[in-house]
Amino acid sequence: MYEIAINLEGKTKKNLYEQIYEHIKKEIQKGDLKCGEQLLSTRLLARQLDVSRSTAQLAYEQLLSEGYIEAVPCKGYFVCEMEDLYDLKTDAAEVQKEEETIPTDCRYDFTPNGIDLDHFPYAAWRKLSREVLKDDQRDLFHLGNPKGEASLRSAISAYLHQARGVKVQPSQVIIGAGNDYLQMLLSRMLGTDHRIAMESPTYRHAYEIFKRLGYDCCTVSMDRQGMNVQELRESGADIAYVMPSHQYPMGVVMPVKRRQEILQWASEKEGRYIIEDDYDSEFRYVGKPIPSLQGNDTNQKVIYIGTFSKSIAPSIRISYLVLPAPLMRRYEQVGRNFSCTVSRTDQKMLELFMERGYFERHLNKMRALYKNKHDLLLAGVRQLHGVKGILGERSGVHILLKMEKSRSEEEWIARALIEEVRVYPLSEYCIDHNPRDPVLILGYATMGLKEIPAALERLQTAWN
Amino acid sequence: MYEIAINLEGKTKKNLYEQIYEHIKKEIQKGDLKCGEQLLSTRLLARQLDVSRSTAQLAYEQLLSEGYIEAVPCKGYFVCEMEDLYDLKTDAAEVQKEEETIPTDCRYDFTPNGIDLDHFPYAAWRKLSREVLKDDQRDLFHLGNPKGEASLRSAISAYLHQARGVKVQPSQVIIGAGNDYLQMLLSRMLGTDHRIAMESPTYRHAYEIFKRLGYDCCTVSMDRQGMNVQELRESGADIAYVMPSHQYPMGVVMPVKRRQEILQWASEKEGRYIIEDDYDSEFRYVGKPIPSLQGNDTNQKVIYIGTFSKSIAPSIRISYLVLPAPLMRRYEQVGRNFSCTVSRTDQKMLELFMERGYFERHLNKMRALYKNKHDLLLAGVRQLHGVKGILGERSGVHILLKMEKSRSEEEWIARALIEEVRVYPLSEYCIDHNPRDPVLILGYATMGLKEIPAALERLQTAWN
Repeated sequence: MYEIAINLEGKTKKNLYEQIYEHIKKEIQKGDLKCGEQLLSTRLLARQLDVSRSTAQLAYEQLLSEGYIEAVPCKGYFVCEMEDLYDLKTDAAEVQKEEETIPTDCRYDFTPNGIDLDHFPYAAWRKLSREVLKDDQRDLFHLGNPKGEASLRSAISAYLHQARGVKVQPSQVIIGAGNDYLQMLLSRMLGTDHRIAMESPTYRHAYEIFKRLGYDCCTVSMDRQGMNVQELRESGADIAYVMPSHQYPMGVVMPVKRRQEILQWASEKEGRYIIEDDYDSEFRYVGKPIPSLQGNDTNQKVIYIGTFSKSIAPSIRISYLVLPAPLMRRYEQVGRNFSCTVSRTDQKMLELFMERGYFERHLNKMRALYKNKHDLLLAGVRQLHGVKGILGERSGVHILLKMEKSRSEEEWIARALIEEVRVYPLSEYCIDHNPRDPVLILGYATMGLKEIPAALERLQTAWN
Repeated sequence: MYEIAINLEGKTKKNLYEQIYEHIKKEIQKGDLKCGEQLLSTRLLARQLDVSRSTAQLAYEQLLSEGYIEAVPCKGYFVCEMEDLYDLKTDAAEVQKEEETIPTDCRYDFTPNGIDLDHFPYAAWRKLSREVLKDDQRDLFHLGNPKGEASLRSAISAYLHQARGVKVQPSQVIIGAGNDYLQMLLSRMLGTDHRIAMESPTYRHAYEIFKRLGYDCCTVSMDRQGMNVQELRESGADIAYVMPSHQYPMGVVMPVKRRQEILQWASEKEGRYIIEDDYDSEFRYVGKPIPSLQGNDTNQKVIYIGTFSKSIAPSIRISYLVLPAPLMRRYEQVGRNFSCTVSRTDQKMLELFMERGYFERHLNKMRALYKNKHDLLLAGVRQLHGVKGILGERSGVHILLKMEKSRSEEEWIARALIEEVRVYPLSEYCIDHNPRDPVLILGYATMGLKEIPAALERLQTAWN
């Protein structure tokens, strides 16, 4: 019969029963208490340690629950058979605060990523959040529809129909937490046994994600009309990923004839699809938005993907797919199991944001704001030394500068950096490594209206 | 030279330029305006239609942008070559509101899914939301760390270390929008060329997700200590998915010896892993919580997955992985590209909820509440006719009733339904189809304290 020797401390956070439980557990783990050995009865243990019997009982019950001891009816408590199979260590590492890498700052940063957050509608967002988090909205805290809330999918459909000419029923819309996730989900429906053709240069992040998902990705060259369809045919790809309204980063708008050709390509063979990434079509500063390719598709060949990252904020993490009929059927078979990745309260907030007109007003405000920045930048860069031409203007939130060949991209960038202005190389977006003339990318979304002239002055100095 | 015949309407939502643009576009699409045909100059068009020249200019610019016409310097505007390749249809379908299927209601529903939302801390949540959505928290609207916010990962690590004995550094924690998503992400790190062994009965949803992700899944029988390790060895599986603290749905706690055996199995061969799903360990009504298996792992073999779905609300959509070192390296290679699926504002709210003690208080409150329901239900079901035994009590939010074989599961359930009480069959969770004695599942999380006695009375009637 094992007698316990333990100094119980009254002044500790741990209950008496926990101290007893841990002491015995350690004895068993160390092997001081051996398999089959009998423990004191709870009555004797309580008397020996001068604790209540229920305290002793609690300690034994915990040891029973975790399988360190067993109770034999009419006999008492015994240490379980514990093979020396596996050395159980329990001392947990101390939790340390993780260091975040802080990006090195630059006074003027023409990053093509990011959006203008000075004009984010914080007040409206707070108001909607208060409304949505009311006690009587309890239903929102249950698990929702895997596709996303029906009411939000209706609001998105109405918007896409009206603003983008997308042919869509709410049942075709799948809401997910960001494009990366939706590409992942899409890969479940499509399978990964496909070759995906992308333009070069392209939206590199999407390319990397498809690679990571196990796709065979290839690049197809592009001209001023977009993806070269002849090369697409020769590539052996069965999926083409394009941004017809505003190619990233080149800013090319795919004209209607090229759209016909690429839709024709898709319709020629079963299983071919076009992924239309319509990431920033909201921002166009001359005329109407360019209609979606999906709206012209009569053969259920276009997978449309859109996001609120650019139009509201990257942290919103709400994107959506519009699936053609054959993939809707696949979704019902293999995709429906995956619960929606966006919280219902966030979905409800976005729905109200759209339905009450906040979204439209916000887009109009941002379009005007970005247009001002765009015009200011465009007027200024024309004067800069070394700039041979401008590409991709009139829409989106960046422009491209074709630079003189006298210096390389790296040199133009390095000179700008000396003056504390960060500009970006097009070559980062090129997946093939064809030699190109130096082209720089200047994003203006995150730049203040007052910063643009100051930054341009510095570029003038830098590039002279 | 093509002359335009169009009735411009002043009283419409569309601008004049849009009406002109759409008219010409339709003419081109119908083939009435043919390839190569010259259009009126903007000056003549403006005069003919009695609009300003800039209106005509805008219409042409839109047609140019979309590729319907081209401008030939010094000559004018011409219709582009449009092959009859692909029939462009543009009439978008009308957007219809989608009908949601509403689950048929039952007066008393012992669903094992769902949580008690009557006691959700709405006020605290609203307060934190107001704080997080302040204008000066602008940083939160930028894209965040792909793993999730460092501060939230620290808070989760501290919690797991203290409450679950998990050995964890914040850098090992990956935050994601729900378990389904994290299983998907994990499949990127592990690859899908594995056989996953699960118990039967098990958490069927996880099983389905692994199947959908392309895994070869097999089942291994379980006894009162959990997964049968001998069968696991024979199964050829290299990944074992277990719930050692509280197996779902059987409620088995894996004792320490079985834990040793399964850890031993994993350590015997490179590439073997144990996935520990610790979905509801917070709710245990006798003694301390059962420590995690991960805390006993000395060989970097356990992938720990946890969620706030049960402890806060299913709609929160925040789960987390704790990865062992080899998979952290894989994450850096193949997982880092995927942006975090939880919005930063939601992450910040949860972080504050944990750091300010709301989470602990909420858990204590819910534990006490669930314990009351548990005790009430347990006392009542013992008296019911047909109940041979009770399993899985003392923790979680459901119990199992072993029923007499005189009736099948379906019969016991059907009789309860007549009295408007819904109880659930264990067989739904069985992946293999071994014949079993009838076992019913009764969840009590969503049941009110007053409803339980009323429902029990009806079950008494139903099963007599």
